[in-house]
Amino acid sequence: MKALFDLNEWKIIEHNFDSSKQEAAESIFSIGNGAFGQRANFEEKYSGKSLKGSYVGGIYYPDKTKVGWWKNGYPKYFAKVLNSCNWIGINIEVNEQQLDLAICQVDSFYRELDMYRGILTRKFVCSFNDGKKIEVESVRFCSMDDDEIGAISYSITPVNFSGQVKFTPYLDFNVRNKDSNHNEMFWEERVKKAYDNKGVVCASTKITNFQVAVAMHYSFQKNHDEVNIKADKIEKELYVSNCFEINLEKGSKYTLFKYVSILSNLSDSELSLTDLAILKVNEAKKYGFKKLLCNHEQSWQKIWENADVIIEGDLKAQQAIRFNIFQLYQTYTGKNPKLNIGPKGFTGEKYGGATYWDTEAYCLPFYLKTAPRKVARQLLLYRYQQLDKAIENAEKLGFSAGAALYPMVTMNGEECHNEWEITFEEIHRNGAIAYAIYNYVKHTNDIPFLKEYGREVLIAIARFWSQRVNWSEQKNKFVILGVTGPNEYENNVNNNWYTNYIAKWCLSYALEVDTQILINYKSLLRKGEKQKWQKIISNIYLPKIEGTNIFLQNDNFLDKELIPAASLPEIELPLNQHWSWDRILRSVYIKQADVLQGLYFFESDFDLNTISENVNYYEPFTVHESSLSPCVHSILFSLIKDEKKAYEMYLRTARLDLDDYNNEVSEGLHITSMAGTWLSIVEGFAGVRVKYNELRLNPILPKNWKSYSFNIVHNNQRVYFKVHKKGVSIANNGNDDLVIYLNKKRQLIPSNNQKEILC
Amino acid sequence: MKALFDLNEWKIIEHNFDSSKQEAAESIFSIGNGAFGQRANFEEKYSGKSLKGSYVGGIYYPDKTKVGWWKNGYPKYFAKVLNSCNWIGINIEVNEQQLDLAICQVDSFYRELDMYRGILTRKFVCSFNDGKKIEVESVRFCSMDDDEIGAISYSITPVNFSGQVKFTPYLDFNVRNKDSNHNEMFWEERVKKAYDNKGVVCASTKITNFQVAVAMHYSFQKNHDEVNIKADKIEKELYVSNCFEINLEKGSKYTLFKYVSILSNLSDSELSLTDLAILKVNEAKKYGFKKLLCNHEQSWQKIWENADVIIEGDLKAQQAIRFNIFQLYQTYTGKNPKLNIGPKGFTGEKYGGATYWDTEAYCLPFYLKTAPRKVARQLLLYRYQQLDKAIENAEKLGFSAGAALYPMVTMNGEECHNEWEITFEEIHRNGAIAYAIYNYVKHTNDIPFLKEYGREVLIAIARFWSQRVNWSEQKNKFVILGVTGPNEYENNVNNNWYTNYIAKWCLSYALEVDTQILINYKSLLRKGEKQKWQKIISNIYLPKIEGTNIFLQNDNFLDKELIPAASLPEIELPLNQHWSWDRILRSVYIKQADVLQGLYFFESDFDLNTISENVNYYEPFTVHESSLSPCVHSILFSLIKDEKKAYEMYLRTARLDLDDYNNEVSEGLHITSMAGTWLSIVEGFAGVRVKYNELRLNPILPKNWKSYSFNIVHNNQRVYFKVHKKGVSIANNGNDDLVIYLNKKRQLIPSNNQKEILC
Repeated sequence: MKALFDLNEWKIIEHNFDSSKQEAAESIFSIGNGAFGQRANFEEKYSGKSLKGSYVGGIYYPDKTKVGWWKNGYPKYFAKVLNSCNWIGINIEVNEQQLDLAICQVDSFYRELDMYRGILTRKFVCSFNDGKKIEVESVRFCSMDDDEIGAISYSITPVNFSGQVKFTPYLDFNVRNKDSNHNEMFWEERVKKAYDNKGVVCASTKITNFQVAVAMHYSFQKNHDEVNIKADKIEKELYVSNCFEINLEKGSKYTLFKYVSILSNLSDSELSLTDLAILKVNEAKKYGFKKLLCNHEQSWQKIWENADVIIEGDLKAQQAIRFNIFQLYQTYTGKNPKLNIGPKGFTGEKYGGATYWDTEAYCLPFYLKTAPRKVARQLLLYRYQQLDKAIENAEKLGFSAGAALYPMVTMNGEECHNEWEITFEEIHRNGAIAYAIYNYVKHTNDIPFLKEYGREVLIAIARFWSQRVNWSEQKNKFVILGVTGPNEYENNVNNNWYTNYIAKWCLSYALEVDTQILINYKSLLRKGEKQKWQKIISNIYLPKIEGTNIFLQNDNFLDKELIPAASLPEIELPLNQHWSWDRILRSVYIKQADVLQGLYFFESDFDLNTISENVNYYEPFTVHESSLSPCVHSILFSLIKDEKKAYEMYLRTARLDLDDYNNEVSEGLHITSMAGTWLSIVEGFAGVRVKYNELRLNPILPKNWKSYSFNIVHNNQRVYFKVHKKGVSIANNGNDDLVIYLNKKRQLIPSNNQKEILC
Repeated sequence: MKALFDLNEWKIIEHNFDSSKQEAAESIFSIGNGAFGQRANFEEKYSGKSLKGSYVGGIYYPDKTKVGWWKNGYPKYFAKVLNSCNWIGINIEVNEQQLDLAICQVDSFYRELDMYRGILTRKFVCSFNDGKKIEVESVRFCSMDDDEIGAISYSITPVNFSGQVKFTPYLDFNVRNKDSNHNEMFWEERVKKAYDNKGVVCASTKITNFQVAVAMHYSFQKNHDEVNIKADKIEKELYVSNCFEINLEKGSKYTLFKYVSILSNLSDSELSLTDLAILKVNEAKKYGFKKLLCNHEQSWQKIWENADVIIEGDLKAQQAIRFNIFQLYQTYTGKNPKLNIGPKGFTGEKYGGATYWDTEAYCLPFYLKTAPRKVARQLLLYRYQQLDKAIENAEKLGFSAGAALYPMVTMNGEECHNEWEITFEEIHRNGAIAYAIYNYVKHTNDIPFLKEYGREVLIAIARFWSQRVNWSEQKNKFVILGVTGPNEYENNVNNNWYTNYIAKWCLSYALEVDTQILINYKSLLRKGEKQKWQKIISNIYLPKIEGTNIFLQNDNFLDKELIPAASLPEIELPLNQHWSWDRILRSVYIKQADVLQGLYFFESDFDLNTISENVNYYEPFTVHESSLSPCVHSILFSLIKDEKKAYEMYLRTARLDLDDYNNEVSEGLHITSMAGTWLSIVEGFAGVRVKYNELRLNPILPKNWKSYSFNIVHNNQRVYFKVHKKGVSIANNGNDDLVIYLNKKRQLIPSNNQKEILC
């Protein structure tokens, strides 16, 4: 694989400007703070190929559905994260020549993303047509400390001349989504005003009527001294700017500090949104760039304290895991209950929507182990708030009596995807949402949550499954017909083992919660439900290959030509770019873990031998053309101690974006699968298994690694682990003693033990 | 069911003007001549709700595909029959008031489609705002005698005034397809010219570059005397008109005869298209309205001589069968090898494309028995000409070595549909094309056709099947995975019995043709093909319900809830308007004959008992939500002598459009299923089975019918049958004696016997 950027343990570095890589770099160097985010577009004008992207979490537009052949039940809209105000813009003109790296000669170029500090820096020297040369340095961040603030320091040094330079810092809402179905403009102007050294634009979205107010304020320095400037105020539709021309002296450094506040009526009253934005930006400017940056860095430090993974002896792996952790926390911090984790985060538009089952299946376990429990709880509450909509959604598909089907893709709880084989049939997602509740409770023992929120969701989901099964006279079993399992390379199949298994599990767990865990509270079950569900639990069909321990992916799977993926010609890969859909569907090739996803979720239901047999049966047919595939495989290979395959799978997931495996990073990063990378280390290599009051470790050490270390939040305490050749060192940073099972042997780790104990 | 129009054995009659019925009436009263056709839009301006439609056969536009989620292998374009020049237009102004039935007061209204003569007549009296009253009578036809000519006689009689009336006959290419995906204009002007009493517009289609030239010429009469008029000539973009004002005397009748020629570069050189159109229209005018009409009527008479079905004792059935025959011959006459039979003919835009498997499965047997053999042969040649494209189409889907997959929907041989479950998986269509060749040869014994054309097609289709099967280790059989059978209410199923059966049959027949029927000619088979195909033929999986004679629709069919359609609540019907797609798919309900389609095609492979068991098993699950469903059922019920069910099914098919069963006739008529109605009588009630040199009859008489009679073209001779209570009367109009098997008893019908013989 091509390494696009330099290897460095904390940084992503680019040393040359290559316009053909610019869109990919814009994704890789994206920054964000959980509330808003920004692709690494240039501040100054850039006329080359670029995907401009500025996104504000939770602000979406219901784009009119585009579909060739309408099917009953399709939603009319597809909710899309909106491309929002360009807040980074600073146009520069030297001698009436626009600074534009697509046109100027670039003499040197350096771009760096410092993941430890959360800062994007760019330095370059370029020459204009008339020979004038300038050096530019820009530094920017989206404040992790105050998630309504972004700041830019933009410096220019004239290298070989003194003369007039024009600066135009601006805010511009004239942006469209590249993925708009009908190329519509989604924004309408509400307020705009240019002041001295300041400006504000407030715009609202059509239909959804969200309001976003963005204000800017700036100061200007020569070397380190404040310079007063007098700027023209320019107002256009959805746009404000200040424009000033200033005489620069050769060799001196001039810096424009641009402070920006980004507010929306998700959190603030729309009545005073514009005023609040101005207030906020005034404050930011008063603090100044340094102080803001310092606060920002401290916030990142705190995140890293919990979430960092240190790998010794494998720089590629080290950089990759940090990149993944960094991007996850840029995307979601758990502060706002209306937000979730979109598959591309704030790094691109593709896929629209914000919430897929990725959140529950992959991201939640990451936050459960790296962040305070309220973060994971927030993710669960998000779904609780959307329960009514999930019930409505199920009603549209013919279900009744409080059965809930959560959408495949959503923003506000309504389904917004429209492929029947996915929207209507990939119903296992419902199971992942129930499983996330189970997983959260397993980690936290948060029974009040279960009582107040979790149970309702679990029962509504169980009701769905109880209606979705049907009795097969032929099989003398309950069956589930017409589904798409996690392997989207089969559609509309019958008795997908994973789906049937999770359906059964959902019914069991809902019953367990209602009738055992919450036995002291009034049951929410209706008459007859318990009996009906028990009957299904006892009689659901779970296909298996006769004479083996191998669970059958679906009915008819064995009718396929069972030729391993290894024999596929290189030139036909990835299949989804080379084969027609029907050929993919009738082939044996698996896009992502399907039976294995079930073994991962329900590991404790199966013996190691069974897991091993299934992994070794299905993996050879798997083409891993979903970013969510290799991580589950890596974890299972670790579990069955196949270190070589576990490491191979880890590499596939860890550097997916950095090395642009699928040649698509220009569209944005695979945010949700990044959590899987972290899980590959912690649940995979380290074999961490958590139950409330119980933490187990069963580690392996990849061959070429000297060691790896990480923290786990366990019972609200931080525990540190370092796996190395001599064993495992453990440090307990909490106030309580901890019992840890290491390779099944119980160990006591005393409280407040910062010192590592070698076990 | 509501009867929209009067019952009459030869006519469709409407006595009142109801604007809410106008679009439906526009479909029902459509006229055409196999080359072009016209919905029953008004000549004068009409501002009410209307679907304007004027279509020229074979002239299409590749509209850009509209699809939400692209799948590899989808075609970029969807070929659409174009809405073409409005050639009927004649605007009328009385005292500066536009004649417009949406605005004027309609005092009386009468519309009549005379199917025997092929004429659309309309008479009405209406009053303008100022009290002026006129009587209008329009008569129009698309000449069956000369399929480049249309003619209109448009008369006005001022009822209560004398005064100026303005006439504006025009030609207008400013039309768009209502179903255009991107609301684009498909026409570009080439030539336009307004002359005295004459005008011409020639326009070309974008991209496909078809050219259509339309010329008009007119004359004007007062009562029966020619009047010279002096008109203004008006030319606009894609439009010409003449406009003249004339003083009308109260009580006198003034008639504008508008002659129109419609030519295209499908048949004529584009270099002189405009001139040819003018030449043609001059000629038409010279002939005059009466003579043209007379020739037109004679052509229709000839069609009716062969194709008519007379039903005594059931006026509804009589009207319906004639309506169906009439529409079929309006749509396709077999003259032009580039044309085919679109599902809506010239009566609407829906579905685009021109050619579906409907043509081979339903229409071909109709033309085989009612028209000279060259008509059916023409339909087969159409596919032969597109064989290269079918091979390309299969290559796109991963097939090789000359395997052909004919498109699901096509205009020029390229696939233009884009639902993966249909486009890629409804591959049984390939079988229907092979079957049509077999059927044609069975009727005609046209071995030269088989040798020159048919064999190539058959072998290419067989090659497709031989690659499309795969070996199932589990079943120890060849299987066909991931198909959609004729029942489109199941998608992506495995081992659809019908598909597997026809695949096997295609392989057998291709071998039979190459190695037996054409034994004296060099084989076209490649080395090993014969052996491979034989192996598949002997080992293909044909699912059956154990312990019965019932063939299993697909694998897993028996896992469904087997509840008969009769227990569906009325309010949920039709299912496709009330149920979400997934619910339909996993239900047992069948849209149209699937296993039964196979029993219909391959009747002689099965004993009556088997057929009966299958019909009685599947029909109760069938909701007949395809217009192609009831006819096959009616034929099979006739075969198993269930007269009651056969008649019930006949009624469902026969008056589908006239009584607007599905509330959609406004979009156009169900042309292809009309052939099925005819088959329900001839192959169904009469039980006609034809092999070259053998004609069998096994009739039943529906209870409330006195008799029914029809003709069959058999060995290029016309044979007349009348089934009545006393038996069957037969007349042989040909030069050869005929042997006919009536209820298995052989009868000799002497040649040239116009007299009916009672058998």
